[in-house]
Amino acid sequence: MPTHLSPPGTVPPSPTTAAANQEKEFNIALLGAGGVGTIAALVLEKSGRARVTAILRSSYAVVSEKGWAIESVDHGVLGSWRCERVVQTIEEAVFPEPQPSPPIPTGAPTPMEAARERYDYIVLCTKQLPEKYNLAEMIAPLVTPGLTAIVLIQNGLNIQDPFIKAFPSNVTMSAVSMIGSFAEPPNVVKHIGPDILQIGPHYHAGVPDVVSLEKTKTFVQMYSEGGAKSCEFVDDMPKARWSKLLWNGTYNSICALVEVHVGDVQSSGAKEGLVLPIMRELQAVAKEDGVLLEDEVVQFMAERSPRSSRWQPSMLLDKVHGRPMEFEVILGAPIRRGRELGVPTPVMSTVYELLKLVRWKVENPGEDGEPHIG
Amino acid sequence: MPTHLSPPGTVPPSPTTAAANQEKEFNIALLGAGGVGTIAALVLEKSGRARVTAILRSSYAVVSEKGWAIESVDHGVLGSWRCERVVQTIEEAVFPEPQPSPPIPTGAPTPMEAARERYDYIVLCTKQLPEKYNLAEMIAPLVTPGLTAIVLIQNGLNIQDPFIKAFPSNVTMSAVSMIGSFAEPPNVVKHIGPDILQIGPHYHAGVPDVVSLEKTKTFVQMYSEGGAKSCEFVDDMPKARWSKLLWNGTYNSICALVEVHVGDVQSSGAKEGLVLPIMRELQAVAKEDGVLLEDEVVQFMAERSPRSSRWQPSMLLDKVHGRPMEFEVILGAPIRRGRELGVPTPVMSTVYELLKLVRWKVENPGEDGEPHIG
Repeated sequence: MPTHLSPPGTVPPSPTTAAANQEKEFNIALLGAGGVGTIAALVLEKSGRARVTAILRSSYAVVSEKGWAIESVDHGVLGSWRCERVVQTIEEAVFPEPQPSPPIPTGAPTPMEAARERYDYIVLCTKQLPEKYNLAEMIAPLVTPGLTAIVLIQNGLNIQDPFIKAFPSNVTMSAVSMIGSFAEPPNVVKHIGPDILQIGPHYHAGVPDVVSLEKTKTFVQMYSEGGAKSCEFVDDMPKARWSKLLWNGTYNSICALVEVHVGDVQSSGAKEGLVLPIMRELQAVAKEDGVLLEDEVVQFMAERSPRSSRWQPSMLLDKVHGRPMEFEVILGAPIRRGRELGVPTPVMSTVYELLKLVRWKVENPGEDGEPHIG
Repeated sequence: MPTHLSPPGTVPPSPTTAAANQEKEFNIALLGAGGVGTIAALVLEKSGRARVTAILRSSYAVVSEKGWAIESVDHGVLGSWRCERVVQTIEEAVFPEPQPSPPIPTGAPTPMEAARERYDYIVLCTKQLPEKYNLAEMIAPLVTPGLTAIVLIQNGLNIQDPFIKAFPSNVTMSAVSMIGSFAEPPNVVKHIGPDILQIGPHYHAGVPDVVSLEKTKTFVQMYSEGGAKSCEFVDDMPKARWSKLLWNGTYNSICALVEVHVGDVQSSGAKEGLVLPIMRELQAVAKEDGVLLEDEVVQFMAERSPRSSRWQPSMLLDKVHGRPMEFEVILGAPIRRGRELGVPTPVMSTVYELLKLVRWKVENPGEDGEPHIG
């Protein structure tokens, strides 16, 4: 029989997949190749252990032709770098590179469905905007039940829940990251703050804990080998995410709302007047949620930013650039959890409601096209 | 003896004061001739019953020469209007127009202190910024104990307290006003929202209630006769001030913080999410303070502004023009009162702390002169 047809009941190996699998240990899909995602793709391929398929949107044309132009504090200057494969849609990422195929002979049975890529990891580095899109739904075609591990390098609380629910037999892990890296469309990446992250598993029924543990540790090892400044395994990821939220829920939100640097919050009295009250609300919700955030952790998070800091957190940058802010997962999620657990969060809720008004203002420009004020 | 010297023990009448007193019933000093104060001066003089001395600052030079150029919804266009007297300092307002006086003859006794103006009313229309200046101290030279009534046409809660304390034998009254009137330095006044106000006495020990009542009603009558759209006497001024605060503490604060029109607050969900929670906190503090704000009043204040309103409240205009905002008397005062009375005000306090951060930002431009963000 012709070589391209296999005996009924077997899946013909795609030459590309086979070749890729022979070359690299892990097949990884990445969604969200912005500042953070591009560096993640770079790190994973630098480890030598991964073949990364990046799913791009508006940057596809430029990046497929020229790659990314990267300036990185961890990796130096790379004038033109590309991961092994870039595609324009999730659909394209599902299937391997198209192979030239001879026409189906007359009378042959219906061709079998084309081979699908089997991804070992799907790495999500998009903005967490659950009010706008449903990531778990979007990536479902890429997930092989029982195999593919989902890695969330994103902001927010309880972001793992939709994936655990949609893919109960798959490992889900997440990262809290200190990285500072910004994309300048169409293909420039300015990586200015070292890639320092903690990754941990979200243990759940449906996956034996040892499997969650192993797949997470493997990913951490690979990421470290790829040259990240620091990639650390943490076993208690819920606690790590709550700790990150202490800083994100306060400084990120306040700086975005008032348009000041982190150092201004420290210098102005807002640390005492706003940051600490919100941190105490978060601490109270976490406690009812079974996560103990010690007072020392709260103090540390409130003190660690110097008065001289001119850092502009992500939601502030989003706001001034007219992009959506991630306050639903950063503030909305702990507020909702607090409501479920009977913990009042009036200070957080006030900041949240004000950010909702900001969002409304951006999404509802004046009738006559005029800005609201000015 | 020469006519300019009177027998010892008597105060020589100043020709100007005498003439003025013969011409007009009431001698009035006015501090804060901005958008609101200039119209107040105009109304009082239009009544035919008052001679107004306006104490100006930076606008003195232009106004003393050319008057104010007024466009008013209540009074029409006045290309060049001036009240009877304008002075540059409180000191000058204390004393009448200087009269040419012959030199003191050698050997004469020490001349007596010059005659002081006796003001029937002092009208204050300045911004209420108690953190910046002490109005009661400033106007003390103008106050004749037991005679001068103090009229506060200003925003805020408990603004009468410093005056009652400083001048216990004087009547203090205040106004809540709907007027929309804006000064464009040096001498232009755009009066765009009708002069609708309620004036009432702040009864206190040291002044018989009937005296407080009578002086207030007299002022209201005079103000009405001067052509204000509507000037109403209210006996329960504390309640009227709290009612005004329901609107001011919410819409004024929120619009300033987020930079939106009043109508945006109504359209965006912020009415439910922010306005009503703050109004309920104010209602609770008022209740403990002995003032009953009915639920119907709260509802009315939350519903009265239409979604189409493009009104920019005073603190928003102050903010965009880099001027100090009056949030200490609008939010700070009810918060402090709540603390004294054991009423929690977390939502109001969060907005207040955010406005403090805005104030800090304006008062602390970046070291290198750069704006904080942008």
